[in-house]
Amino acid sequence: MQNPVTVEVTRGRLVESRHRGMGVVVDGDGKVVFSFGEAEAAVFPRSACKAMQALPLVESGAADAYGFGNVELALACSSHSGEDAHVATAAAMLAKAGRDDTALECGAHWSSDQNTLIHQARTIEKPTALHNNCSGKHSGFVCTCVHAGLDVKGYVEYDHPLQAEIRGTMEALTGAILGHQNCGTDGCSIPSYAVPLKGLAHGFAKMVTGSSLSPERARASRRLMEACMAEPFYVAGSNRACTKLMEVAPGKIFAKTGAEGVFVAALPDQGLAIAVKCEDGTTRAAEAMIFALISRYFERGGEVQTKLLSMANKSMRNWNGIHVGDVRVTDALFA
Amino acid sequence: MQNPVTVEVTRGRLVESRHRGMGVVVDGDGKVVFSFGEAEAAVFPRSACKAMQALPLVESGAADAYGFGNVELALACSSHSGEDAHVATAAAMLAKAGRDDTALECGAHWSSDQNTLIHQARTIEKPTALHNNCSGKHSGFVCTCVHAGLDVKGYVEYDHPLQAEIRGTMEALTGAILGHQNCGTDGCSIPSYAVPLKGLAHGFAKMVTGSSLSPERARASRRLMEACMAEPFYVAGSNRACTKLMEVAPGKIFAKTGAEGVFVAALPDQGLAIAVKCEDGTTRAAEAMIFALISRYFERGGEVQTKLLSMANKSMRNWNGIHVGDVRVTDALFA
Repeated sequence: MQNPVTVEVTRGRLVESRHRGMGVVVDGDGKVVFSFGEAEAAVFPRSACKAMQALPLVESGAADAYGFGNVELALACSSHSGEDAHVATAAAMLAKAGRDDTALECGAHWSSDQNTLIHQARTIEKPTALHNNCSGKHSGFVCTCVHAGLDVKGYVEYDHPLQAEIRGTMEALTGAILGHQNCGTDGCSIPSYAVPLKGLAHGFAKMVTGSSLSPERARASRRLMEACMAEPFYVAGSNRACTKLMEVAPGKIFAKTGAEGVFVAALPDQGLAIAVKCEDGTTRAAEAMIFALISRYFERGGEVQTKLLSMANKSMRNWNGIHVGDVRVTDALFA
Repeated sequence: MQNPVTVEVTRGRLVESRHRGMGVVVDGDGKVVFSFGEAEAAVFPRSACKAMQALPLVESGAADAYGFGNVELALACSSHSGEDAHVATAAAMLAKAGRDDTALECGAHWSSDQNTLIHQARTIEKPTALHNNCSGKHSGFVCTCVHAGLDVKGYVEYDHPLQAEIRGTMEALTGAILGHQNCGTDGCSIPSYAVPLKGLAHGFAKMVTGSSLSPERARASRRLMEACMAEPFYVAGSNRACTKLMEVAPGKIFAKTGAEGVFVAALPDQGLAIAVKCEDGTTRAAEAMIFALISRYFERGGEVQTKLLSMANKSMRNWNGIHVGDVRVTDALFA
């Protein structure tokens, strides 16, 4: 099975670069509604599965105990740009549990968003762990540990009880067996497990439909997804794909990106979830693929579909604002 | 003809992403020494052909008239990071011709190098055209026009005499016919022509060997390449691939990157030139491919080859410095 070319990047009249990808759309029962490429191949979801990793925060009662609302829960599922509001919210979450940024084990980095980096360079000497794009998730981890009486130190380690619980949660959702054999280390130092793309999509379909989940897990899943859809800025940030995508149709699209060309989405009204992976790990292609795939499930020619297709087929302009080419999706996504 | 997987990106024990690519190594007579993938496919060289585009600066006598040495000629062939020395040199080149940054038609942008961007954010309000990565090339264009008595205004346009001369120069070097049919607009607004990858490599092989060139063009070609090899910082900048590559073996490797996964190199001692293109346009893969291909032509197990192979197979560390995976080249580059 070859991954088809799903996204082309043009210049003038020619195709300059092309991306191959795989994708799958499933319902709550795991039935494949649409797929292309190696839909059963094992992929690292990376940050795309943060809403799964945030389930213990809600299920343990920590989120309620600390009074977390949509903003905090969205940030717990986020890969944020390190904008001031993201940083402040992560700090406030830690403060609720009596901790500060010294408890975070994610490492520090400057924002990868240019405007935010310029702002950071002008206002701080250097970034802390609160500026790390994963600081919301890690603040949620710390709060979960404190509330549950677990050692906070070492919460990123494979053998820590929190990571063991996340592993079990992800196994139940994705149907995959997770262990050292398919485990890598993520950018923020927690374990990241390669799972079949179809299993990843099925996990999100279970979360958005409640299918085959306990009432508690179904409630926690919907609460996290609804928080993200209600506060999309806190899931990513200004001009970011996840944020813009969830703003297209408030409450109707949950979406989360992951490094190396992964993107997942869940559609509550349709009871479907989607997972894509760009073979070469490029974000521009993963974005175009998820925009196009989501558009299939909205009214033909309607406002939402039109907006999504205009995001999937994007005109590129140079430093002088001249149109130089396009990023466009291929028929492989519309077979 | 399929492009083979040439670069794999691993995480833990698994391959997380993979890149396909094409490449070709030719001598001055155009004989193919080694190739893989669609080596005859038309690709936009983008900035990889800047040394070709700088030939009129030398051949017209402008470089001599303005007293340009290695630093200025290297900058004329560069995609620089916008570091202070790059910006100052571009301004000084323009001043020699009695012009300033208002003559540049490349547009303005912040540095794409993180450290440089942080420095820029702290020292300037916003970037000018001098900070554009192409400002050295454009300063060379302006100097060529002023020296030759051509209108400077509109020097980026397809029909401007300078662009017509560059088109002719590139046709002679690459053997391709260039026109509107294979022309796109580059990031800096000048015409960019898609040429067969093999023709691109052959053009650089002619430049580095002088084969089939007039004595004047052979001299100008060697002068530009020697300037780049003598001043690699001015071809790119701190921590940039072109700069580091030319520093591995001073005077023995000429190298230049281009957007969308293109890289070219020329080896004076071997009389060879190399061109690669990553199908999906990713820089990390183009870099790994060119490092590996160049390594083939240096002494087996010697210092240069060892350094190049360690650059081609690169360990990736996360924000905490933990080894998470590798970028590694495949056997397709060593067949």
